Amino acid sequence: MQLLLIHSDFIEFEAKRPTKLAEEVEDSAKKGRLDEALCAFIAVEKFDEDDTDAVIAEGAKQVADVAGQVKAHRIMIYPYAHLSSSLSTPATAVKILKGMADVLSQNYEVMRAPFGWYKAFTISCKGHPLSELSRSIRLGEGEVVSEALKSEAKAV
Amino acid sequence: MQLLLIHSDFIEFEAKRPTKLAEEVEDSAKKGRLDEALCAFIAVEKFDEDDTDAVIAEGAKQVADVAGQVKAHRIMIYPYAHLSSSLSTPATAVKILKGMADVLSQNYEVMRAPFGWYKAFTISCKGHPLSELSRSIRLGEGEVVSEALKSEAKAV
Ligand SMILES: [Mg+2]
Repeated sequence: MQLLLIHSDFIEFEAKRPTKLAEEVEDSAKKGRLDEALCAFIAVEKFDEDDTDAVIAEGAKQVADVAGQVKAHRIMIYPYAHLSSSLSTPATAVKILKGMADVLSQNYEVMRAPFGWYKAFTISCKGHPLSELSRSIRLGEGEVVSEALKSEAKAV
Repeated sequence: MQLLLIHSDFIEFEAKRPTKLAEEVEDSAKKGRLDEALCAFIAVEKFDEDDTDAVIAEGAKQVADVAGQVKAHRIMIYPYAHLSSSLSTPATAVKILKGMADVLSQNYEVMRAPFGWYKAFTISCKGHPLSELSRSIRLGEGEVVSEALKSEAKAV
């Protein structure tokens, strides 16, 4: 799993058109907006297919960890295939994204953008040092590569 | 080089704080906005250090190709380290980003966000099928991996 976490003034989206892989969703789930939110752009990867429950738990933990650091109470789960060149099946992706939203809903206001739709979106990134972080989760390798602490040394 | 190309209603940024790697820039270059623009989020990679002139030419060609497809006349060059885990040196990144901006300036209105600064930004992605594309340039391997045509099959 590849995560790009952006602390935003707001994030809003509108599903415009389904791709062949589109998740079926109610009309009410095709648009959404959160203010003062952490937006988690997520690519679920082939590697994540082996143990989806563990990936859901670790993914939710990583997102919650950053939400805590930036003091965000709202989380947007946003599928983002362009973060990886080794994607999972769509079914696995939807399962993991829904699972993460369920876990995080226990402690945060959570919204999830639908999978497999062409979406318009607007995001406003705050620009403080923790407002853009990336993390890679590779459970099979027994590690979580956090880009949080080294982000200042990166070319943000 | 990793490219994430977003066709936007607008993209605006404001440099907030320099990192240790920050490029020195005039105050006037610390803020900017383009409307109806293609925003090229770019990670310059280790791999790009061997032949920077060729990477500048190929990178500019790829961006121009997409700008042509979406009929954008304005291009934002935006450094985005989070697209890769194998970054070039900052000096190489700045050289290539500046070089791409120079080449593209011959045919487009170009703006370049400064390298190595924490930046606030807002982007509004249009949401049509070509409005989010990614490309990987690996010149040493003699290929450009285009994600343009297969984007519909990805979990956008
Ligand atoms: Mg602000």
